[in-house]
Amino acid sequence: MPIVVQKYGGTSVADASRIMNVARRIVETYDEGNQVCAVVSARGDTTDELIQLAGEITPHPPEREMDMLLSAGERISCALLAMAIDRLGKVAVSFTGSQAGIVTDTFHTKARILDIRATRLVEAMSDGKITLVAGFQGVSTAKDVTTLGRGGSDTTAVALAHALAADVCEIYTDVEGVYTANPSLVARARKIPVISYDEMLELAASGAQVLALRSVEYARKYGIPIHVRSSFSHTDGTWVREEDDTMESAIIRGVTYAADEAKVTVRSVPDRPGVAAYVFGALADANVNVDMIIQNVGEEGHSDISCTVPREDLVAAEQALRRVVEDLGAKGYTTDTTMAKVSVVGAGMRTNPGVAATMFKTLADIGVNLEMISTSPIKISCVIAEDRVEDAVRALHDAFGLDEEQLAVEKSDRAVGHD
Amino acid sequence: MPIVVQKYGGTSVADASRIMNVARRIVETYDEGNQVCAVVSARGDTTDELIQLAGEITPHPPEREMDMLLSAGERISCALLAMAIDRLGKVAVSFTGSQAGIVTDTFHTKARILDIRATRLVEAMSDGKITLVAGFQGVSTAKDVTTLGRGGSDTTAVALAHALAADVCEIYTDVEGVYTANPSLVARARKIPVISYDEMLELAASGAQVLALRSVEYARKYGIPIHVRSSFSHTDGTWVREEDDTMESAIIRGVTYAADEAKVTVRSVPDRPGVAAYVFGALADANVNVDMIIQNVGEEGHSDISCTVPREDLVAAEQALRRVVEDLGAKGYTTDTTMAKVSVVGAGMRTNPGVAATMFKTLADIGVNLEMISTSPIKISCVIAEDRVEDAVRALHDAFGLDEEQLAVEKSDRAVGHD
Repeated sequence: MPIVVQKYGGTSVADASRIMNVARRIVETYDEGNQVCAVVSARGDTTDELIQLAGEITPHPPEREMDMLLSAGERISCALLAMAIDRLGKVAVSFTGSQAGIVTDTFHTKARILDIRATRLVEAMSDGKITLVAGFQGVSTAKDVTTLGRGGSDTTAVALAHALAADVCEIYTDVEGVYTANPSLVARARKIPVISYDEMLELAASGAQVLALRSVEYARKYGIPIHVRSSFSHTDGTWVREEDDTMESAIIRGVTYAADEAKVTVRSVPDRPGVAAYVFGALADANVNVDMIIQNVGEEGHSDISCTVPREDLVAAEQALRRVVEDLGAKGYTTDTTMAKVSVVGAGMRTNPGVAATMFKTLADIGVNLEMISTSPIKISCVIAEDRVEDAVRALHDAFGLDEEQLAVEKSDRAVGHD
Repeated sequence: MPIVVQKYGGTSVADASRIMNVARRIVETYDEGNQVCAVVSARGDTTDELIQLAGEITPHPPEREMDMLLSAGERISCALLAMAIDRLGKVAVSFTGSQAGIVTDTFHTKARILDIRATRLVEAMSDGKITLVAGFQGVSTAKDVTTLGRGGSDTTAVALAHALAADVCEIYTDVEGVYTANPSLVARARKIPVISYDEMLELAASGAQVLALRSVEYARKYGIPIHVRSSFSHTDGTWVREEDDTMESAIIRGVTYAADEAKVTVRSVPDRPGVAAYVFGALADANVNVDMIIQNVGEEGHSDISCTVPREDLVAAEQALRRVVEDLGAKGYTTDTTMAKVSVVGAGMRTNPGVAATMFKTLADIGVNLEMISTSPIKISCVIAEDRVEDAVRALHDAFGLDEEQLAVEKSDRAVGHD
């Protein structure tokens, strides 16, 4: 019997009627002859409300207790969904992360899954029961409740799909799939029918929020096919899978942006070996997530080192840099929080060398200045002024023919039975 | 080092400032040189909100899932309280019922504690940590989350006090202790400084809501001294402990009432052996909690059997009685939901035979009719019309001199250093 793992996000279970809707979808899948394990996020704003409650108590809650607090949200939605399925006449059993056998390390608020001991899930599904798992959480090797950090429920779903040897991992969300650009920004953005793990990783890493980066890494590692789709319609969404010859080869798959960047620059650092290692070692020790780095030669024997960091890491970055400046005898540091990053992603650029030139020309044509550039074999990112990021996304989406391509792809879809 | 178990009810942790208040109390107790284990209920209306959410999904939620849902409330308050204590500079660790080692049977929504494996609590307290336990919940022998039913957090606290060999179990609530009558009904009701387990059991069973019946049973069984007191003041509350010679011997300790009674009567049942057993067997099978019973001889060879049940059990009772009437060939059954019960409780009535007479005369003097009467060695209860119950409580409180006695007790307090 095929095994389907499904994941429902917070907006899909936000109120009683949506929970009933999700219950019906799960029962449909079950009635089609599948064993079903559904991973559930916390309802709508529950997590934000819990974070606010903690904020009313203390500015620095202990992370172990934060995990105890936040894990309650998924338990609630999971139990409510089990009740909804019961009302539809099927037997569903809810499991906490711990009961589902999701064993993690002890890094609270951002734990990593070490092992999945899914015995209880397997037994329940063999008994004909629908299983529901509270997403985003596990139990540490020290037997404490842990949470998996941002996008944790996606990771729970993909990891369970692997542990259960599921045929597919369906990620249900409030949009129809992965788009060539954020549809609320680019009206003519189109849904991507199929995308490779590598491209999806780059999209997720450069700003696309529909699928969490870690879950894509996990899926790629174990070859789990992911189907990203809407819980409010029955249309096919986006399939994320291994790249192969049947996959349409777009030069550019999509355009993404991240508006929450900050740039920090350490001024006039002595230009000698080991300095960059010292600067970024200090930032890493402070748990600051550094993205792009550039180093400019400055006055005699000195250089400026710049990097981008998420804005939420800026306070930690500045703390670290104050010590760095003192230790290295640098002139000081500056910060700039008006930066954003725009990226184009596509496996086809490996064999199409003109992509970078097109990107830079497009941005130049609309008068956007490039602060930093970084590339991977299938991605080019530029740091630009935040107030131009929307213009930049629209111009790039147009320049790479993502609207026109839609027509071509739809035709070839019909011709070759693409999905 | 003395060990103190404390329990904080929902109103004591209703918002951030109250949680900080509770945290300060716990830290005070810790700083006085005690090991502290605090049991926490769900905040204010959390449990009601969760019940309402379930009600929006289905009228008959599966009990296992109800437990999964409701247990989330205590986890939230427990984690928030740990954060509050952390802010005060002390280390607190929160535990779910399962993590605290509270093992129950598998009767969801009303599980009973089978065993407490408090290893983790003992270790944490030995390490100098304050321990916090989510009340009202445990883990079943089938490894599912269970809840302990009404008053479950009181039971958690008393059971932990026993398991940890605590010196005292303090039950913090929003009133100053146990009163001679409900103070919102009887303005001159006074706080009872000390009361025996037996008297407290009768008070709790006959309507006093300050302490859950099961927790008192547990405390009596293991001789755990309970101190019921307010989380909003530092005054001594009510001590519940073994009866001994130092305890002031009141004839009547208090007057209680229960307004949620219903009376059911099976009409004209054949008067032969085994009939009463059959009627009450059927009610017991339907999980109906029968309180008082009377049987009246009726027409030749037949009798009427009446009993009182909680109003919330009435639907179940009627279902059972329809079958009983048919099986026994009785004339039918009637129900009356305008009944209430008023009780007087006091160990001193064992040696004071006039109590019943005083009670009946007092009620007669204010024109209250007695529908049923039941007695124990230390309690007399009367079923009366619901709309007279407040008058009855006030008249009895006055008739048994509970106001005057207050003055006498206060004097003797000063004389003998009563507490």
